[in-house]
Amino acid sequence: MPKISEERREARRTEILEAAQRCFAEHGYEGATVVRLEEATGLSRGAIFNYFPNKQALFVALTAASSDRFVEIWLEHGFRALLEEIAHADPDWIAVQIEAARRIRTDPVFREQVELLVERNRKLREERYPRLRPQVRDDLPLETIAAFFSFLANGFAFERIAGATLPDLDQLVELIETGVGPR
Amino acid sequence: MPKISEERREARRTEILEAAQRCFAEHGYEGATVVRLEEATGLSRGAIFNYFPNKQALFVALTAASSDRFVEIWLEHGFRALLEEIAHADPDWIAVQIEAARRIRTDPVFREQVELLVERNRKLREERYPRLRPQVRDDLPLETIAAFFSFLANGFAFERIAGATLPDLDQLVELIETGVGPR
Repeated sequence: MPKISEERREARRTEILEAAQRCFAEHGYEGATVVRLEEATGLSRGAIFNYFPNKQALFVALTAASSDRFVEIWLEHGFRALLEEIAHADPDWIAVQIEAARRIRTDPVFREQVELLVERNRKLREERYPRLRPQVRDDLPLETIAAFFSFLANGFAFERIAGATLPDLDQLVELIETGVGPR
Repeated sequence: MPKISEERREARRTEILEAAQRCFAEHGYEGATVVRLEEATGLSRGAIFNYFPNKQALFVALTAASSDRFVEIWLEHGFRALLEEIAHADPDWIAVQIEAARRIRTDPVFREQVELLVERNRKLREERYPRLRPQVRDDLPLETIAAFFSFLANGFAFERIAGATLPDLDQLVELIETGVGPR
């Protein structure tokens, strides 16, 4: 049997995640049956579960992928870029975040997996914090500043869902920079 | 028929909202059937619908009541008091917020009603903004400052749901005040 390359595998994995996101957004977690996931991805269940052991693992991976992407944008391009990204994020992404918030409450196994993910992300961010240091005030721990950014980003996403009018981003960034910038 | 007093009516209405919150949190919106709402409140459907025309109106009123309470705490007792309130909020309240976020996406009638509510709250806040003015910087519109507070409060609530470790509130408030305080 020919072995497919690591890049092919990675590309295929990303395709499955994208199709699964549409499917979970349209039908909710329970409604996204294996049959619907097959239709959405155009792949057999055997092919899908070759990448993710089961539906729950696929859902957790989706949550992890979007969380990683946002941390990446923030650390590489700054907080303004992250706000822009959220302001223009695919509504399907938002739908999946809400489904995830619901399952955290109702499914203890999912909750445990998300807690591991949150912990892993915290470590990931902490390793990269030293790069942030010169851009922010030094009289407060970086954990507090990171939590502040994280609340703002999540609240911004949440209000986008609720249809609130979003403020002028330049003014918002000005406020944030006054709060966190070097003294 | 004896007329019950306005206070009795108001107290009864609050009792129904509290019981409905437990019921929606436990069973989700769809699962909170009229029979379950009767059990939770200890009242007949006739008595319940004397206060709220239908289940959806009850759910909207619940969303409105909690949103009003939070705006009230913020404007009367300041942003720190609001953060404390969210840090200790009933998990049932959080559950109902998630259900509401989901229905905003999936139910156009509910979405429309929430948009009216958001608009009403914006006006309510704006009427009371003049009291905030002396406490905040005057080089940015109050709408931007209010949006900033609103994102922080919602993001804080969202991360509580996801089980994140919450930061030191004193430090967080210090950051916020540096950002928004008078120049």
